Amino acid sequence: MNDITIDRERLWSSLQKLGEIGETDDGAMVRVTGSPADAAARDTVVSWFEDAGMNVTVDAVGNIKARLPGTTDEDPVMTGSHIDTVPHGGKFDGVVGVLAPLEVVRAWNDAGITPERPLDIVVFTEEEGTRFGVGLLGSLVATGKLALADALELSDGNETVRECLASIGYNGAGTIDLSSATSFLEIHVEQGPILDESEIDVGIVDAVAGITHHRVVFEGTADHAGNTPMDMRRDAYLGAAQFALELESIATSAGEHSVGTVGKSTVSPNGTNVVPGRVELGVDIRDIDSKRLSHMIDDAKAAATNAADARGLDVRWETLLEVEPTDLSAEIRRRLERAANSTDSTYRTMLSGAGHDAMNVAETVPTGMLFVPSEEGLSHTPEEFTSPEDLYRGTRVLEAAIRDLVGGPHAVSSPLSEKHPDSA
Amino acid sequence: MNDITIDRERLWSSLQKLGEIGETDDGAMVRVTGSPADAAARDTVVSWFEDAGMNVTVDAVGNIKARLPGTTDEDPVMTGSHIDTVPHGGKFDGVVGVLAPLEVVRAWNDAGITPERPLDIVVFTEEEGTRFGVGLLGSLVATGKLALADALELSDGNETVRECLASIGYNGAGTIDLSSATSFLEIHVEQGPILDESEIDVGIVDAVAGITHHRVVFEGTADHAGNTPMDMRRDAYLGAAQFALELESIATSAGEHSVGTVGKSTVSPNGTNVVPGRVELGVDIRDIDSKRLSHMIDDAKAAATNAADARGLDVRWETLLEVEPTDLSAEIRRRLERAANSTDSTYRTMLSGAGHDAMNVAETVPTGMLFVPSEEGLSHTPEEFTSPEDLYRGTRVLEAAIRDLVGGPHAVSSPLSEKHPDSA
Repeated sequence: MNDITIDRERLWSSLQKLGEIGETDDGAMVRVTGSPADAAARDTVVSWFEDAGMNVTVDAVGNIKARLPGTTDEDPVMTGSHIDTVPHGGKFDGVVGVLAPLEVVRAWNDAGITPERPLDIVVFTEEEGTRFGVGLLGSLVATGKLALADALELSDGNETVRECLASIGYNGAGTIDLSSATSFLEIHVEQGPILDESEIDVGIVDAVAGITHHRVVFEGTADHAGNTPMDMRRDAYLGAAQFALELESIATSAGEHSVGTVGKSTVSPNGTNVVPGRVELGVDIRDIDSKRLSHMIDDAKAAATNAADARGLDVRWETLLEVEPTDLSAEIRRRLERAANSTDSTYRTMLSGAGHDAMNVAETVPTGMLFVPSEEGLSHTPEEFTSPEDLYRGTRVLEAAIRDLVGGPHAVSSPLSEKHPDSA
Repeated sequence: MNDITIDRERLWSSLQKLGEIGETDDGAMVRVTGSPADAAARDTVVSWFEDAGMNVTVDAVGNIKARLPGTTDEDPVMTGSHIDTVPHGGKFDGVVGVLAPLEVVRAWNDAGITPERPLDIVVFTEEEGTRFGVGLLGSLVATGKLALADALELSDGNETVRECLASIGYNGAGTIDLSSATSFLEIHVEQGPILDESEIDVGIVDAVAGITHHRVVFEGTADHAGNTPMDMRRDAYLGAAQFALELESIATSAGEHSVGTVGKSTVSPNGTNVVPGRVELGVDIRDIDSKRLSHMIDDAKAAATNAADARGLDVRWETLLEVEPTDLSAEIRRRLERAANSTDSTYRTMLSGAGHDAMNVAETVPTGMLFVPSEEGLSHTPEEFTSPEDLYRGTRVLEAAIRDLVGGPHAVSSPLSEKHPDSA
């Protein structure tokens, strides 16, 4: 084990370098799919993969796969995440899941280690879904849950996915064959406060909340704000406002792990002196329990209809994403626990309220997730932060787990232990 | 009188031609200040003015003034309006107030008539205020209510007014001297249903509602929509939603001529899966009564504070525009009534709930406004419509009124009559 060294400074420096691509003057990340920043970030990680001796391919939806060849041609172990960000996001979300495994490969290279099975690092396209309205886009296509042709025709009103990928030169052929993988691991920042508050090194995720995205459109009449009496209006903004407040009540009363959010809003015509004629909302509803999630969505639909009826508006509800709550692999969880023990790391099992590409993969491949602490739980903001030390600790656990999964003379062989501070 | 003929087809055809500039595929007008469409529309009306023998100058805030010389150098009569539109607006708002007086000049040219006083047609910049957030911008500067230097530094976040006017070549010198005018007339579409429903030819406006615009910013925390429990959020969208619904109640209960509107909303970061950290609203509050207007604004500010406090948000209220309710000139109103009578037109006096450049001018110059019918009262939408016949009738009244005001052998000399279907 002494011959494998995770290089804390190399990992941190790579993360900082990637964080300069798409960084605004106020330190926020804006690296939206297909933007010049996305293209530059893709080029950068591809060059790093190649420098580490990996073979890079790009599939038809822009997913990048970097393969470290094994000593055999057996089915690979896969890991990965994404490098797109929400608008005004941070430097860690997704990126950790690409650069931590890259550091694993670099450390193996330094130590002269070649895995038995190939190791694939995957960079999924449009995980955040902020540009084309569908989150986890790359893994939805790679797992066959969304047809490639449909994904490529998604549009942001200006450009389709197909056009956008062609314009940055990341339009390859075929789709990544995830079903060939023996296992899939994703390391990610927690995006919540639990690990940071309890000072635990890593979280081992046993389930991911069900996540649904909806486009809700209220249509009224655009009228002059000065000459249209209050009682003659069909104000789409007010319908949307009433709906948003009712969604808050629904989620608050549903349960501890229930959340409902109006995150996105587009008003037309959007002039101060015009009664809004149309409002399009991006709505996010999640729960760890499948039945409760389904009830929340029904209640939210009824609330939208009520809000529209109260003002003579039309309303249209379109579900864009619907992923069931997902249990992750118990076998992989045990492997991750073993890796944590072998590196003297503290850990706890936990739920993920956030959706991740791993939950799409989990239906076809034994899948595990590892969380590293997020300072104060901040996420999707320029202030999100994970310390170099926490990154280092998490990457050591990841390295041990991957080494275990790829097989070979360096695989971890210590038995399962009971070191587990909180299994609730 | 027989020698002066308003050419219905020429007027309609000019209006249609201008309506093709900035027209979208679905027939809407998007001619925002400083856009290529705005530049093209300005070039077009300037060429029409020059073809009609008028001398065109442009001032430092982009206001265009076309002068038809009189037989004397006495102080001019002024008329005019604007050619910018709200996003997704119609072809008539503002444009009628530029092209109807142009048709008057063309008709005079045909008839060989030269006025005694010069006649100025003014095209004001950024009346709608949709790009730089300040409505009636051109007339605010021309009347000295807003300092030129401040107006030029207004920015849409991308470009200042100064840069935008320079880029389209409409950055002249000085500002139009409105105080030199003996009188100012603005003909405009009603933007309400009264004339259309009662089948009256023209409305003679005796007062314009006070109009105020405000920027209201709610600041919370952008957090992950999946990992942030409902009770730990500071959701700026929900604060804005609660405020908008309370503003509706305030305006509804204030009075018949009271209106309050959230017309514009910008959400940050605006991702479906991010709790909104910041919402900026464009708020419009109007009333015909100065005291009631002031009370409404106070109530709205209190509502914004309450909505923010309820969710631990910060709120900032900035008043961008504050124009008092304005009484128009009684003398000009009598002249307009005389002009309506002399052309056998039906008319009624009425209020304007919409703000117009005329109300800025009214403080320094005797000012009148003439309304022509808006079909179904629709306004600020591609569906706004005034028939060729209604435009013709309104322009005939305008012509007679201007001819009266400029003086000379053709001036109207008939006495005031009592023809007045509804003076309520």
